[in-house]
Amino acid sequence: MQDKILISTKKREELVDITKDVEEKVKKSGVKEGICNIFVRHSSAAIIINENYDPNLSDDFIGFLRKRIPQGIWKHDVIDSNGDAHIKSSMIGSSLCVPITNNDINLGRWQRIVFCEFDGPRANREILLTIISD
Amino acid sequence: MQDKILISTKKREELVDITKDVEEKVKKSGVKEGICNIFVRHSSAAIIINENYDPNLSDDFIGFLRKRIPQGIWKHDVIDSNGDAHIKSSMIGSSLCVPITNNDINLGRWQRIVFCEFDGPRANREILLTIISD
Amino acid sequence: MQDKILISTKKREELVDITKDVEEKVKKSGVKEGICNIFVRHSSAAIIINENYDPNLSDDFIGFLRKRIPQGIWKHDVIDSNGDAHIKSSMIGSSLCVPITNNDINLGRWQRIVFCEFDGPRANREILLTIISD
Repeated sequence: MQDKILISTKKREELVDITKDVEEKVKKSGVKEGICNIFVRHSSAAIIINENYDPNLSDDFIGFLRKRIPQGIWKHDVIDSNGDAHIKSSMIGSSLCVPITNNDINLGRWQRIVFCEFDGPRANREILLTIISD
Repeated sequence: MQDKILISTKKREELVDITKDVEEKVKKSGVKEGICNIFVRHSSAAIIINENYDPNLSDDFIGFLRKRIPQGIWKHDVIDSNGDAHIKSSMIGSSLCVPITNNDINLGRWQRIVFCEFDGPRANREILLTIISD
Repeated sequence: MQDKILISTKKREELVDITKDVEEKVKKSGVKEGICNIFVRHSSAAIIINENYDPNLSDDFIGFLRKRIPQGIWKHDVIDSNGDAHIKSSMIGSSLCVPITNNDINLGRWQRIVFCEFDGPRANREILLTIISD
């Protein structure tokens, strides 16, 4: 079964917690056990699984990326000023699988599924879910 | 089919080769061909596939991460001194799929499946396997 | 269903677009909806999904990696001068899943599947595809 999550972002760099949306789609699918592939259909965004309780973690992560992969120094920026966003997306990745157990996503206590915007704000970011039974 | 690998770690940063454990679980599953999803249920650890023959490779990798993502400089450290571990986990990733062929994992000659501890020592680290037939 | 893509590389560091090869194998499989796991069977190479229209993006990505993970400074280099390639492979990853919809890979408009060589030139690089129906 496939389904979509659509989100809009408000800043150039922003982390958006989509755990509840993925949870809802997995429950709707009826799949008891298996995996859910989470695929970001953009080359200037990414997907991570991490803690999202302390908002400082987002600041730390975005700050780390800004320092290590700064904006405005890339050859690609002649065409489009998002060379940094493409590198961030390649390094972090835009496809992830999470396990499904008892018709729910089976994350660790502190884990959340987090969409990473690196070239926002964008009105239409699309995340494609593919839910597979084992 | 789902199964678990439980490990304990002895150092703050440590690489633990779990290839044999994954191999064993895949054989037990009876699945002839497909994929095995390896999911680390923690936000301060990660999973990689790489060479693990030369012990210097572990030192190189941990040393690289320590230098580029140092401990003790993050906003999150006010709550818990593991801001670096969360960033390492997000950058490397905590979910991986490996192919299964002839009821065995199908890695390249030098590839090993390696759990990465970034906030140890920990008595109970849990890795969830989901084995899917194609 | 499993299938292979074989490629040869000409430089030490090189990005090779394999989107068309993956597309072809997915069509051949007959699988209507599901995922395709793309697994690089080497520990000094990796796989990404990113834009590949502007050739400057490749230069930016390879240049970034050369600067941040330079060659020739690793303990492993005593045995084999590719310590940097192993670290790049671990950081980026060698396994990815892409969604399949209507018997075709379902990428975003600008996304391409790109093999990353970090220790070439190599005559025989092998990428294993596992195609799974949902």
